[in-house]
Amino acid sequence: MKAYKEMSKEELRALQVELKAQYEKLKEQGIKLDMSRGRPGADQLDLSAPMLDLLTSKVAFEGADGMDIRNYGVLDGIMEARELFAGMMDCSVDHILVCGNSSLNIMYDLVSRAMTHGIFGNTPWCKLDEVKFLCPVPGYDRHFAITESFGIQMINIPMDENGPDMDMVEKYVNNDPTVKGIWNVPKYTNPAGAVYSDKVVRRFANLKPAAPDFRIFWDNAYAIHDLYPENKTEILNIVTECEKAGNPDIYYEICSTSKVTFPGSGVAALVASPANLAETKKQMAIQTIGHDKLNQMRHVMFFKNADNMREHMKKHAEILRPKFEAVLDCLDREIGGLGIGTWIKPLGGYFIAFDTLEGCAKRTIALCKEAGVIMTPAGATYPYKKDPKDTSIRIAPTLPTPDELTKACEVFVLCIKLAAIEKILGEEA
Amino acid sequence: MKAYKEMSKEELRALQVELKAQYEKLKEQGIKLDMSRGRPGADQLDLSAPMLDLLTSKVAFEGADGMDIRNYGVLDGIMEARELFAGMMDCSVDHILVCGNSSLNIMYDLVSRAMTHGIFGNTPWCKLDEVKFLCPVPGYDRHFAITESFGIQMINIPMDENGPDMDMVEKYVNNDPTVKGIWNVPKYTNPAGAVYSDKVVRRFANLKPAAPDFRIFWDNAYAIHDLYPENKTEILNIVTECEKAGNPDIYYEICSTSKVTFPGSGVAALVASPANLAETKKQMAIQTIGHDKLNQMRHVMFFKNADNMREHMKKHAEILRPKFEAVLDCLDREIGGLGIGTWIKPLGGYFIAFDTLEGCAKRTIALCKEAGVIMTPAGATYPYKKDPKDTSIRIAPTLPTPDELTKACEVFVLCIKLAAIEKILGEEA
Repeated sequence: MKAYKEMSKEELRALQVELKAQYEKLKEQGIKLDMSRGRPGADQLDLSAPMLDLLTSKVAFEGADGMDIRNYGVLDGIMEARELFAGMMDCSVDHILVCGNSSLNIMYDLVSRAMTHGIFGNTPWCKLDEVKFLCPVPGYDRHFAITESFGIQMINIPMDENGPDMDMVEKYVNNDPTVKGIWNVPKYTNPAGAVYSDKVVRRFANLKPAAPDFRIFWDNAYAIHDLYPENKTEILNIVTECEKAGNPDIYYEICSTSKVTFPGSGVAALVASPANLAETKKQMAIQTIGHDKLNQMRHVMFFKNADNMREHMKKHAEILRPKFEAVLDCLDREIGGLGIGTWIKPLGGYFIAFDTLEGCAKRTIALCKEAGVIMTPAGATYPYKKDPKDTSIRIAPTLPTPDELTKACEVFVLCIKLAAIEKILGEEA
Repeated sequence: MKAYKEMSKEELRALQVELKAQYEKLKEQGIKLDMSRGRPGADQLDLSAPMLDLLTSKVAFEGADGMDIRNYGVLDGIMEARELFAGMMDCSVDHILVCGNSSLNIMYDLVSRAMTHGIFGNTPWCKLDEVKFLCPVPGYDRHFAITESFGIQMINIPMDENGPDMDMVEKYVNNDPTVKGIWNVPKYTNPAGAVYSDKVVRRFANLKPAAPDFRIFWDNAYAIHDLYPENKTEILNIVTECEKAGNPDIYYEICSTSKVTFPGSGVAALVASPANLAETKKQMAIQTIGHDKLNQMRHVMFFKNADNMREHMKKHAEILRPKFEAVLDCLDREIGGLGIGTWIKPLGGYFIAFDTLEGCAKRTIALCKEAGVIMTPAGATYPYKKDPKDTSIRIAPTLPTPDELTKACEVFVLCIKLAAIEKILGEEA
């Protein structure tokens, strides 16, 4: 294939006519597909359906804590669930606080409590003139929405396939006391699918923050969500690395079973040092008497231990792998060599990130929408929804069926091409 | 019986010797009983156990909203659950937001969001020098813990059997713009078991707050928790009354099934005007993608409608009535006529409040503890845990079995008497 930039204007215009005709034909098909959010498909949800048959009226309701798990209490989460999460996240039980159904809620509440109550006796952030968070980009839109909602100033940190630019992270964190946090999805970043290298994790653990209440938000959403489980990716354990570095309290790690069992009806947990957990629980005790222990027990009965959880994830991988590969194959086949976009092949997680030519992401997504394919809105993966170069597109291939995905990709690559040609020809959209 | 204050010192001392001997004998029995928290008993939890057999892997997971209820989304709660709560709280579905497992969490988050984001565009409370809440007393310790935790100044408002002193409430709310809220448990107050009269509810609805962001926190925790369902108590509907008064946005009403199905694994809801709900949902959308819709559906499948919920509550009443009556009978029999305490007979809810002679509550509770009976700590029912007259004791009769309760009451009344005699004789404890 010839790269578009090497083609003459005439060649490009001829190609444009041909592609536009294809586009009009696709539009006539009345396609309605959604690749905008990282939702599991119904077949993935079916994998956990048997969990719903286990906790019946016939079971004993006494937990390891010795109390009726149907009643109030046990703010920590039931011991059985804490052990399950300790196995999943590879840490000791005293680092685990099992919560409700949403890791996003845990993160929001951590920021909210830092705003109103402060961390470790430091001034509550709402009383400070300036609070900043570092935001590796492209990143998770819902992270940025939290900090934006609290009026926290967000600073873009570029990322490559090994993680964020750590020179920049260290410069900010170690020198600026108004920098209070950094958002991370360390394994299979959302959306690029990058994996933080050992060196990056160690540099995180060895930060020397200017702010005593600086925290690394380590949203390990895809900790066990490998697409190739036989050859899976491991990142260094943030708990161990921070302890080794003499920084045991510098991180909050968050995880959940939202994409293991049921989004919305899973269980989420906070992984943190005993000192961080003690502070969190003291504040959380004002907010709730306890989370849903029956749902915690349902998960424990289904999985029994973390090894079974990892086995279960292989079934997810079998469903997801063909979907990711369909998109990646299509990109390779249709876009490879044209010089109009880049992407990396993720080995896990829920997304593929595609980078268009500068100034083409919005237009590509608009063209997709016109043809009935909904993508995550352009800019969503950047703080304030502002992608400075307008290149970043997030592809969420999990919800559509493989057939739908093939159709959606056909539309998507066509729109990439059309937007790229317009750009090169200097045409206004 | 002769009132203690009419007895001579000699008579009192003789009685004291006799009671002390009884007390020492009781202590020897090694009693270990807990009347400190409003927890349902295991027999009450068993009433809802069949709910756990309904939502199995065999059911259809499509909700009225047309989506797979196992997946992400539906921040409002599933329509079926909203309809159930609308029936329970006697309002239209557009006033209902179904949330997670905890009404306390809803209330905490409402206060927290008012602190950080403000209400209806007004200055966030955390940016104000002074924020005050009115606290009808005695009241629910966890309400007061929320406002204390946020540094909100709390003002005691005396209550009688018809509700708070509304002259005082109106004086504060209508004149002081730093008064931003008032805590209420309007039906079967915690702990006194009082019921807000129609006049009180109407005066609430007709408040003319100096603060545009003033809200009535209407924690209708015991909305359908009548002990005598055939002859049940109704309070005026806060939704309707506020709308009639032209104050549709002045209240947040909160309710849950914590004491209908399972504490900790129930469902809680916010009842509020569409404008309040729109604002709450806008902020809540940053915090969570949605609550546990499977648990919402489990409740819908079990109850089908609010009438069945009310029928279900009759079974709770059958279990709880004898417990309340055991305590009340014991108080009547042992304390009646002695002039050393007052109480009202609650017709629902979870508590009985006992008022000792001034300065006797702490001592009574300490004596109980020494004999193995744990009561709610003295002062807990007042802001800052300070009961200015040291008279208020909260009795939670729901968790112990009837036999345990009889034993616990035996200890309790004895301790009331001993503390009263000490007081009258002017003895130091």
